[in-house]
Amino acid sequence: MTSPTLQKAVRWHPPAYDIRVEAIAIPQIQNSDEAIVKVKLGALCGSDLHVYRGNGGVDKVHTCGHEFIGEVIALGSSYGNNARGRPALYSNLKVGDKVVSPFTVNCGECDVCRLGYTGRCPKGALFGSPALEGGQAQYVRVPKAGGTLFNLSDPSTWSSSLPIDVKEKALSKLADSSLLLLADILPTGVFAAMQAINHPKVAPVLTGRPWPLCFSPSTDTGNEVSFNAEDRIFTVAVIGLGPVGVCATVAMLDVLASKQIPFRIVSIDPLESRREKMKAVYAAIDEAGKGGGQFAVCSIDESKEKIKEWTSGIGATAVLEVVGNTSALSLAYDLVRAFGVITSVGVHGKTPFPLTGGQCYDKNVSLDFGRCPARAMFPPAFDLLVKRQDVFGGVGQPASLVDRVVAIDQAPEMYRAFDKGEVGKVIFDPWK
Amino acid sequence: MTSPTLQKAVRWHPPAYDIRVEAIAIPQIQNSDEAIVKVKLGALCGSDLHVYRGNGGVDKVHTCGHEFIGEVIALGSSYGNNARGRPALYSNLKVGDKVVSPFTVNCGECDVCRLGYTGRCPKGALFGSPALEGGQAQYVRVPKAGGTLFNLSDPSTWSSSLPIDVKEKALSKLADSSLLLLADILPTGVFAAMQAINHPKVAPVLTGRPWPLCFSPSTDTGNEVSFNAEDRIFTVAVIGLGPVGVCATVAMLDVLASKQIPFRIVSIDPLESRREKMKAVYAAIDEAGKGGGQFAVCSIDESKEKIKEWTSGIGATAVLEVVGNTSALSLAYDLVRAFGVITSVGVHGKTPFPLTGGQCYDKNVSLDFGRCPARAMFPPAFDLLVKRQDVFGGVGQPASLVDRVVAIDQAPEMYRAFDKGEVGKVIFDPWK
Repeated sequence: MTSPTLQKAVRWHPPAYDIRVEAIAIPQIQNSDEAIVKVKLGALCGSDLHVYRGNGGVDKVHTCGHEFIGEVIALGSSYGNNARGRPALYSNLKVGDKVVSPFTVNCGECDVCRLGYTGRCPKGALFGSPALEGGQAQYVRVPKAGGTLFNLSDPSTWSSSLPIDVKEKALSKLADSSLLLLADILPTGVFAAMQAINHPKVAPVLTGRPWPLCFSPSTDTGNEVSFNAEDRIFTVAVIGLGPVGVCATVAMLDVLASKQIPFRIVSIDPLESRREKMKAVYAAIDEAGKGGGQFAVCSIDESKEKIKEWTSGIGATAVLEVVGNTSALSLAYDLVRAFGVITSVGVHGKTPFPLTGGQCYDKNVSLDFGRCPARAMFPPAFDLLVKRQDVFGGVGQPASLVDRVVAIDQAPEMYRAFDKGEVGKVIFDPWK
Repeated sequence: MTSPTLQKAVRWHPPAYDIRVEAIAIPQIQNSDEAIVKVKLGALCGSDLHVYRGNGGVDKVHTCGHEFIGEVIALGSSYGNNARGRPALYSNLKVGDKVVSPFTVNCGECDVCRLGYTGRCPKGALFGSPALEGGQAQYVRVPKAGGTLFNLSDPSTWSSSLPIDVKEKALSKLADSSLLLLADILPTGVFAAMQAINHPKVAPVLTGRPWPLCFSPSTDTGNEVSFNAEDRIFTVAVIGLGPVGVCATVAMLDVLASKQIPFRIVSIDPLESRREKMKAVYAAIDEAGKGGGQFAVCSIDESKEKIKEWTSGIGATAVLEVVGNTSALSLAYDLVRAFGVITSVGVHGKTPFPLTGGQCYDKNVSLDFGRCPARAMFPPAFDLLVKRQDVFGGVGQPASLVDRVVAIDQAPEMYRAFDKGEVGKVIFDPWK
């Protein structure tokens, strides 16, 4: 009996709306730093629709998907004893290990990766693009695997706020469909919340001391008036309730609850189905996870009224923009307070910026942009995944982020239905 | 003998380039929270040229100037015993006190001021605008004086890293022309440096731990590779070397030296005269103030080469944009690294933003905008003023930020010469 040489893969064909499940060659190691992963599950993501609709500026047939979980079945010659001074995974990764990958490759050892800015590694590439075959397939080739992959078989290889036995116990229980959320949407949500909460502009609200005394805890205040209870309320607007927006909301709730910060959060989407999902997710979170604050889910118009009512017209302390278009940025500007922060993790395109420098100056606004450094964000994302199995654990329930797990052959129909908003997050099982 | 009722004031007349020194009424208290200040010195600032040139969208004759130092000669009825719960200055301020004012009024007690965002107080107004007569005059009316003014006669009214006796000794020595730098340019420079150094994106460089572990000092690292010496170098570009840009550079040097952070700074201006001033300022700073880093002064084109050479093409950790136009913002984007920070304190207008959302996303850039909350920034600005008298102490020396102190009658000629770049920073003595 010979080994199989062909595999099933979801392939995009130009110009648009043409997804086929085809038999293509199983990938082979091309470089000593690579791994071949046998995919257990590969997910469909909202950003896949960019290319699907023909808006990706792409014309090359390629395998889709940048979210996958699987098992290492082959490693290049760089692994094991030859890896001194390299990221720990070059020494530790073994054939048979269970791994989840971030949506982009990163080497883990260049000047960009060392600082944790892994999403912008110059050697990086996006899975499921013309530059790198994706994970909606039975097998996927992972360049720079020792920098890229997250080893679910060895929780000692990553730092965490959780003790090792808790991590091990969690790993024995977590479903693959749940762990797959680590590939993109969960770290991106955590990234959005973490940027906002650590921004210097919001430090007065968190420390109870005015700018710039919030940075020097030992200095007495002088001419200032004491804060009142209202001043200490962290008011957040989350714009866009696709899976990443829901994750961002849950991550923000978690950080505010765990730091015992009083808060108000309004989560915003024009689509009722998404608002209903967000409400179900919030309902599923236990009382401790809800923290000491107020929570609302709103349409766009309702959100403006809500922020106005909550803050007496001052505006939100921080806005998480999880959409990636100009109207979302404009809404963020309208909702944010003077000296507030807009943290955008949406994928923006080439349309002109909807704000002038003068508008930004007049409101003293700060803006964060960019792609989540997913590999760097895995540890806190994993912690949140373990904590919030009420939300991230199930499939097909009202509070589940995953709508269904289907056979890979259904990919063309699922792309169509996902594009039309008829289904939520879909995962493909390439072996069913 | 009757009290004089008229004073000299520098008045702007529409449509443009028409400055007159006129005799107008001495202002009177109009509201119980106000003070009348007898001006000792009032300065000319680069942003005064906006209105001078007819670009301010203004057509009302008004007294110019938003930088002044003087003595309180009258107080409204709110002061003294009636001020319980209000900012300390309402109780402490006395007729005869020496004060310096920030360039905008702020009440010091609303929800915006309490948080230290004093530059955006809803009751605020800019001195030297149609809304509020300015400080290039013999007398000026200060609304909300108990929130606005900085009492140089009583250093116990503000917090500082300096002990009270050091503050007192410094105050007895500092020239008024030096203290006047507190009104605008020095706090704005400190504000720019402070925003950049406290931004979460740059935390890995400062802590030596990758994103996001830089936020949780107690957590061990995992899969990461150790930083090398190069990774810990904080590389800064300062764009624009007017007085604020020079202050921003000095403030950045100070914070990096005092925290013992290795650094490289390039300060950039297209004008040779400004570059020469920056070089003289750097030469005047003592060795301790220069810290452990490299420093260069460059033209725009040279700066691109310098950052490329220093960082092997990676880009600057942070860029301070102290100009306020689209070409400065574009240059900032070109110079900053992926995951870098652009902190803009330039006054931007209504021209479209020179970057798309896609460009911001692709480089994971963060941007801070806005006006300095000058009143809140006085304490650290004062500390720096005391520390760096080598730079902020003199008048008319190569390293001085103040070019000359002249009689107020010379205002029309000085506006003309300042607009043409023939003189540096000019201060008016309204009694000469």
